[in-house]
Amino acid sequence: MQLAKVRGTVVSTQKDPSLRGVKLLLLQLINEEGQILPEYEVAADSVGAGFDEWVLISRGSAARQVLGNEQRPVDAAVVAIIDTVYVEDRLVYGKKDQYR
Amino acid sequence: MQLAKVRGTVVSTQKDPSLRGVKLLLLQLINEEGQILPEYEVAADSVGAGFDEWVLISRGSAARQVLGNEQRPVDAAVVAIIDTVYVEDRLVYGKKDQYR
Amino acid sequence: MQLAKVRGTVVSTQKDPSLRGVKLLLLQLINEEGQILPEYEVAADSVGAGFDEWVLISRGSAARQVLGNEQRPVDAAVVAIIDTVYVEDRLVYGKKDQYR
Amino acid sequence: MQLAKVRGTVVSTQKDPSLRGVKLLLLQLINEEGQILPEYEVAADSVGAGFDEWVLISRGSAARQVLGNEQRPVDAAVVAIIDTVYVEDRLVYGKKDQYR
Amino acid sequence: MQLAKVRGTVVSTQKDPSLRGVKLLLLQLINEEGQILPEYEVAADSVGAGFDEWVLISRGSAARQVLGNEQRPVDAAVVAIIDTVYVEDRLVYGKKDQYR
Repeated sequence: MQLAKVRGTVVSTQKDPSLRGVKLLLLQLINEEGQILPEYEVAADSVGAGFDEWVLISRGSAARQVLGNEQRPVDAAVVAIIDTVYVEDRLVYGKKDQYR
Repeated sequence: MQLAKVRGTVVSTQKDPSLRGVKLLLLQLINEEGQILPEYEVAADSVGAGFDEWVLISRGSAARQVLGNEQRPVDAAVVAIIDTVYVEDRLVYGKKDQYR
Repeated sequence: MQLAKVRGTVVSTQKDPSLRGVKLLLLQLINEEGQILPEYEVAADSVGAGFDEWVLISRGSAARQVLGNEQRPVDAAVVAIIDTVYVEDRLVYGKKDQYR
Repeated sequence: MQLAKVRGTVVSTQKDPSLRGVKLLLLQLINEEGQILPEYEVAADSVGAGFDEWVLISRGSAARQVLGNEQRPVDAAVVAIIDTVYVEDRLVYGKKDQYR
Repeated sequence: MQLAKVRGTVVSTQKDPSLRGVKLLLLQLINEEGQILPEYEVAADSVGAGFDEWVLISRGSAARQVLGNEQRPVDAAVVAIIDTVYVEDRLVYGKKDQYR
């Protein structure tokens, strides 16, 4: 899985019928220090991620293991909102830090 | 999923029989600002995307979740025609802008 | 799917038994203008592609949707021989041009 | 599979329900000489890998072949803790060397 | 599929139980001229590839089409030992040349 930051939304009316009601987020991939990687992903979200939050994304067929996505043509999904990232013993990201 | 712009078409007569009647689009991958990425994709289209439109593509086994593609050897499909892309609160793409 | 040009062949006697009788082509990936990309692929061919022809390749599990490949450990297959590639209204490749 | 070194952990409360109880490790991909590659992975761990150990990771649908992961939206898993890596006749990594 | 050269071995005791008895080779990816690519792969081998031989590897779910790998968390497998690689009419690799 990769770390990513919620940056925006993508909206579509004319689409594969199975995608109706699916929330599509625009995500910026980041590394474990929060540095921007030269890659983005549009992913289906069912965990309710909010703007600027760090999330975990799964790509490939894994995205269809999320409940409801089984028959959808999605190749990326937000699977978790991240609380903390520790590298060795150092906290490099804590969700609550965002709201200090 | 990735954002892409419709650039052209690919036509073939001698092909896997399951691909008969499948419309193959040549797509230029772009980022959320519409900047050209050094990557293209030939994808099956069943949503009826038109020239220069922004679309969403799914790759890998997801492409075979599109109705009719289940048994086809396709690894990329157009799954949506994009109406809007918002980054933070800023509209970076709106379909109707194309026709202003 | 990606565009590729047939460059050669790969032959093997000691292999997974399911690969017996499978023709393996060495393919050079190209972009829509026919420019060489820094990537090649060895793919199973069942459409009968000939030397220097432009073909379409599918990668990943899609390669096993080709009739006969269902149980084979192949991750790439030639799925079509290309007749024409149009970018906007411009013909960038036509099969018959090869024989002029 | 790729070689990786355990660097940290990722914790999440709000996530896909199937991920409850799954240990998520932050891994640094390395080459066979132990040199850092510009790539990381967050992977599910069920083999009990410890900090700084070399592990083997599988990505894609392979990650769901690990017992318990079958229905989880994970696209990467630690599948082995490495004892030794030999290149030609030279030992380039031995687990016990870590504790000398 | 990609061409690769056998460079070494990876051994592990603490691993996913399904990997018991699987031979894991360290492979250097090469191009069709035998030039080193900046990529390696650790792959399951059941064709009996020897040191320095050129092999063909399949990645992704294809690796689990090899007999015995169906339920294993492997994302790469050696599927063939290469006899010859021809580019146009030129022999660029012949297995027996190795033993001249």
